[in-house]
Amino acid sequence: MARLRNITLCLPDWIESALPPPDHTYPRLEDRMGLAIRLARLNLEHGTGGPFGAAIFNPATGMLVSAGINLVVASKCSIAHAEIVAIAIAQQILGSHDLGATEMPSLQLVTSAEPCAMCLGAIPWSGLRSVICGARDEDIRAIGFDEGPKTPDWPMAFEARGIAVMRDVGRDDARKVLQDYLASGKPIYNGRSR
Amino acid sequence: MARLRNITLCLPDWIESALPPPDHTYPRLEDRMGLAIRLARLNLEHGTGGPFGAAIFNPATGMLVSAGINLVVASKCSIAHAEIVAIAIAQQILGSHDLGATEMPSLQLVTSAEPCAMCLGAIPWSGLRSVICGARDEDIRAIGFDEGPKTPDWPMAFEARGIAVMRDVGRDDARKVLQDYLASGKPIYNGRSR
Repeated sequence: MARLRNITLCLPDWIESALPPPDHTYPRLEDRMGLAIRLARLNLEHGTGGPFGAAIFNPATGMLVSAGINLVVASKCSIAHAEIVAIAIAQQILGSHDLGATEMPSLQLVTSAEPCAMCLGAIPWSGLRSVICGARDEDIRAIGFDEGPKTPDWPMAFEARGIAVMRDVGRDDARKVLQDYLASGKPIYNGRSR
Repeated sequence: MARLRNITLCLPDWIESALPPPDHTYPRLEDRMGLAIRLARLNLEHGTGGPFGAAIFNPATGMLVSAGINLVVASKCSIAHAEIVAIAIAQQILGSHDLGATEMPSLQLVTSAEPCAMCLGAIPWSGLRSVICGARDEDIRAIGFDEGPKTPDWPMAFEARGIAVMRDVGRDDARKVLQDYLASGKPIYNGRSR
């Protein structure tokens, strides 16, 4: 065994110029989704990963906490979905594995496409309070990506845990990024390539 | 937004002395599970995380590829379950997001306790070919950990994807680590603490 003890995931350089100044606010859901979709499109255009973007916001202030993009192929890490990257960065910034802890603001995940089975499993552990989705599960599957086994009533299960869910915010724009990714001929990197 | 662009997860120093020399082999399932359970116990004893250990092996050679332990609280990262850490390190070592790619050996995840909903979602994306579990889902829930929504027939769903599943390997020893963790008074760090 190579005794590797560290894993590092790194957002690409272009992320700096893609984000507005830190004091910029995103008062409306559409503004927040606009950023998530823009990150997804930039990831496609820069060839740095799959057509998925996510961001975590403090809805009370409209401030951005963290941004994530899909890094699976570039980072050689199947875990590195946009939602996972955004969650992990937010937790580092705020200094806790629990974004739902007493001293934390209620935080919101905005993702350009409905989370896969892994990311749906990850969200309750993160402490996030709400999830806003752009493209639907079926939009993602339509271009060939596997989403894994998800129960159709996952939004209800999330609500029962105190995690609010809203879907179809900017769905058309989010789906267009997925369709453009497919048209670009870039890899649909499902679990097993042989 | 603090413009953090990197996330690093790091196994603690004690991992070096916990692992045998790199040419050591683990011919039997029980040997492999013995390592996973030992890592879980050492994580408890060193106070570096939850009572969960995992390792990835090449079953054809019996060689260890990577090891993982739960790093959630220490790393301030709710994603850092033992299975996720082992998968991410194996992918870095082998240089691909797809451990099931054509040029890869068939790899096996051995985990001291049945994976949670997030880790069950992550395994099909990883390319792993088999999963061996020690403690059962109910053993984990019995000490207070949330496992998330899992379908009882997940092993059948995995088999349908070409991922073999075996449970109850070393279950008694694995459950003992969970019970000792509970008795130690260490945190049961579920998703939301408020």
